[in-house]
Amino acid sequence: MTDLFTRHRPLLESALKALETREFWTPFPEVPSEKIYGETAKDEGESTYAALLGAAFDLPGHPEEGRVGAEVSPWGPALGITYPAAAPETLIAASDAASPGLADASVEARTGALLEALVRLNRMSFLLGHATMHTTGQAFAMAFQAGGPHAQDRGLEALAMAYSELTRSARDAVWEKPQGRHAPLVIEKHWAQVPRGIALTVGCNTFPTWNGYPGIFASLATGNPVIVKPHPRAILPLALTVRVLREVFAEAGLPQDAVLLAADAPGAEITRELATDERVALIDYTGSTAFADWIRANSRAQVFTEEAGVNSVTITGTNDFAGMCANLAFSLSLYSGQMCTSPQNIYIPRGGIETDEGHKSFDEVAAGLTAAIDALLSDPDRAAGVCGTIVNPATLERVASARGAGRVVRDSGQTGHGRSATPLLIAVEGEDGPQNEECFGPVSFLVPCDGAEEAIARAAGIARRKGAITAALYAADDALVTRAAQAFAQAGVNLSVNLTGNIYVNQSAAFSDFHVTGANPAGNASLTDTAFVAPRFRRVMIRWPKAA
Amino acid sequence: MTDLFTRHRPLLESALKALETREFWTPFPEVPSEKIYGETAKDEGESTYAALLGAAFDLPGHPEEGRVGAEVSPWGPALGITYPAAAPETLIAASDAASPGLADASVEARTGALLEALVRLNRMSFLLGHATMHTTGQAFAMAFQAGGPHAQDRGLEALAMAYSELTRSARDAVWEKPQGRHAPLVIEKHWAQVPRGIALTVGCNTFPTWNGYPGIFASLATGNPVIVKPHPRAILPLALTVRVLREVFAEAGLPQDAVLLAADAPGAEITRELATDERVALIDYTGSTAFADWIRANSRAQVFTEEAGVNSVTITGTNDFAGMCANLAFSLSLYSGQMCTSPQNIYIPRGGIETDEGHKSFDEVAAGLTAAIDALLSDPDRAAGVCGTIVNPATLERVASARGAGRVVRDSGQTGHGRSATPLLIAVEGEDGPQNEECFGPVSFLVPCDGAEEAIARAAGIARRKGAITAALYAADDALVTRAAQAFAQAGVNLSVNLTGNIYVNQSAAFSDFHVTGANPAGNASLTDTAFVAPRFRRVMIRWPKAA
Repeated sequence: MTDLFTRHRPLLESALKALETREFWTPFPEVPSEKIYGETAKDEGESTYAALLGAAFDLPGHPEEGRVGAEVSPWGPALGITYPAAAPETLIAASDAASPGLADASVEARTGALLEALVRLNRMSFLLGHATMHTTGQAFAMAFQAGGPHAQDRGLEALAMAYSELTRSARDAVWEKPQGRHAPLVIEKHWAQVPRGIALTVGCNTFPTWNGYPGIFASLATGNPVIVKPHPRAILPLALTVRVLREVFAEAGLPQDAVLLAADAPGAEITRELATDERVALIDYTGSTAFADWIRANSRAQVFTEEAGVNSVTITGTNDFAGMCANLAFSLSLYSGQMCTSPQNIYIPRGGIETDEGHKSFDEVAAGLTAAIDALLSDPDRAAGVCGTIVNPATLERVASARGAGRVVRDSGQTGHGRSATPLLIAVEGEDGPQNEECFGPVSFLVPCDGAEEAIARAAGIARRKGAITAALYAADDALVTRAAQAFAQAGVNLSVNLTGNIYVNQSAAFSDFHVTGANPAGNASLTDTAFVAPRFRRVMIRWPKAA
Repeated sequence: MTDLFTRHRPLLESALKALETREFWTPFPEVPSEKIYGETAKDEGESTYAALLGAAFDLPGHPEEGRVGAEVSPWGPALGITYPAAAPETLIAASDAASPGLADASVEARTGALLEALVRLNRMSFLLGHATMHTTGQAFAMAFQAGGPHAQDRGLEALAMAYSELTRSARDAVWEKPQGRHAPLVIEKHWAQVPRGIALTVGCNTFPTWNGYPGIFASLATGNPVIVKPHPRAILPLALTVRVLREVFAEAGLPQDAVLLAADAPGAEITRELATDERVALIDYTGSTAFADWIRANSRAQVFTEEAGVNSVTITGTNDFAGMCANLAFSLSLYSGQMCTSPQNIYIPRGGIETDEGHKSFDEVAAGLTAAIDALLSDPDRAAGVCGTIVNPATLERVASARGAGRVVRDSGQTGHGRSATPLLIAVEGEDGPQNEECFGPVSFLVPCDGAEEAIARAAGIARRKGAITAALYAADDALVTRAAQAFAQAGVNLSVNLTGNIYVNQSAAFSDFHVTGANPAGNASLTDTAFVAPRFRRVMIRWPKAA
């Protein structure tokens, strides 16, 4: 077991260093290249994925009382995969039974096994890319990155942070208190690291691995068995993950059932039963605020959430109008606004802005954005590659009803591939309207404001009230940027300023960007800070007088 | 401001090192000696205390809408001190107004000021000893230690842990992502550390400074203004603390109102109004489980608690019967069982135990404890010096009613000084009875068990169900100790094994012992681990492309 830890120790050490410096670092290449992943990796990924379709997914030794599975690719075909299913009580009992074995294993044994699992998952990134593509509806390039290496980065980040916490203070000490002229008091002390209990990860439909790995790896590293409850439309990426973890655990002498899959059927979800079981002590949840509220009200567990929010762009001026429009066009189109980091509201001074191309009126800014989106999506294949598909049919209804909320600046269209919708831009007037709530999907509201300061105040205000994970600002005035920085910091939202070129407000890089601040209603936890891992275990001491 | 940080940096560095090694360390001597604290320290402490009596306590610049104060020393006299009082809304508004100034100050400015405050408080330890003695009813030696240097240790520990968290990752970074043959993406990043909001510390009657300092110093270090709500019977030690903090803050250019005193009158407490104000984001609470439950149900704040519990001693055998009895006699008598770490239930095999003095029956063990207590308390002055007084008259009623719960093994008596009660030992039979709940004060239940294993199981079981901060075990069998260690660790309670001589289960040393584990109902937080400080602030980023 410790062999795995020794083998992967350099990887862990590099991750620990990156956590401190917050500079660019990743061990998991994001480019789906056969030069990097091996000549056969692409073909193997495709053929392995194809072989899974229409078949029973094998999870050796996993509790099984039936089979579920109704995944349909937003790109078209049904997956036809069935997964082992079991009643909540069965899963919790199995998890409970695995608890002592996981808790009693050394930090090094658990950490080594989890590092090995991440390395194996990385080798499977093409397969994970296909699995992610056909459950989330992302285009392949994005699915490869977000479902594979970027998720692995986030898992490693959480694992390293947990390891850092577990080893932060001595596990054994000799406490020697002087007693003046008398012999000192000498006490030996040992601290056991006691996990909190069963951890439940409630996966989301859009980024099952990326949003799931931090909690899964943090809980396992700190000794808590994990029940992975995937979204019923996005089981496969997490089922593959659970299989790898169980395989590595078995090889490492750790209890396989420390990682369980709680697959369920749409309309017959078992999340509530799992979340309210008193043996469940930790819940990692990504999803709606309404269900997060329900969990908080009904579960005794400590809950870590990412919830709804209203992300914003505030445009007050730019020295690169074309670059700004191109950058925002990509941010608005990417995965059709179905990222938790996608901008929704775009605040623009009613009187327009100054740019390198001269003054631009509100309508000219809107037209610039529209033209940039149209240009980006002019080729259907490229449009599908950027927009992917719409994962939830309800999103199409939201797009349809949003059309009536104001003046249509750019209408939503289709890419021609799968269930798709390109960005809808709506200009809205006044304080009230749908721009004051999350409108998940490819809908953006252009909001005219009485000048730059009001635009910033409104963007920061909605982040504070409704939550936000990202905010973008375009400004040519340094003093304005400074004031905005303070406003957005007080609203607890990460701010990206004057992004052009190949870096987007949607992007959140592991080891550098803390994803979600925990400081506004968009989530109470941050990936991955100390507060995300430290409460997952407790230290319990035994002390005794040192033998003379 | 930074001068204070520079001046006290060696102190901080030593504290940070101690947090890791968990070895003995303290900068604040616990001995009330004029050789250490200066020739005039003792007299000055006494005279300063005397001058405070019967007068209006001065808190320059503090909100004041009236005066309250009804403290009466459990040793006899009324203190006659009045404190400035203000409505909750007034206090919260003043705290809110001080928020930006505290939040905007640098980590170093806040940390330096707080280190300076601790050093000044340490110099006042004799005064704090008298203030603690006459509000908590502790004997002077204990009041000096617990109210002075030991509390200062805990404050410094929390401050150092907060500083460690605040500086754990870079506050600025240049993120440079390779782009193959193209120029790298280069993004500059800065993280603001955003406090959570107003912090409320709800003080207790027995250890106002020791239990209060960790939350106060952790919240202030992380930039949250603190409202200190003392127990109406124990205002003075915290009022002195608030005054020192406000003085140092004013000198350091930090807002004075970042530390406020919320003094109130018995029967007209303002805790509920403060706790439920939505601007209050953090609450540190020491007290009953019932009120902790109320806070959790009614406040939006993150709550850190120390609550009720049932501490235990399990006696399965010893190689030093006399040493064990003497040690436990002190633990049971110290401050008349009014410590959150005082043992309550004593589990003993019905068939007795093996000792260095041969077999001892259950009754002989009980007799040994009784004799040791009687010997310890035979001299009235010494008895008062160990037992102190009873701080809350309700405790005397609890002692009286506990007498009827079983067979009186040793009756409670008086020391002859102040409102006092020496240990009551009651032998109880069966599973049900008052031993299953906290019986705060000098009451211990001797519980006969069917052997050592059952004794351990019952002690661990009640810790798990009802909470416990301490557990003591006496055992001559190493294998039994190993099994017990696991049982108590799973119950989340710190275990002391075979203590004899001058170290007691009641004692919890800063920088080494984590006080309360957070792993059973006796509290959800641990003094002072990462989970206690990390959630008190959030990191919010601003990022922008680096200028070429």
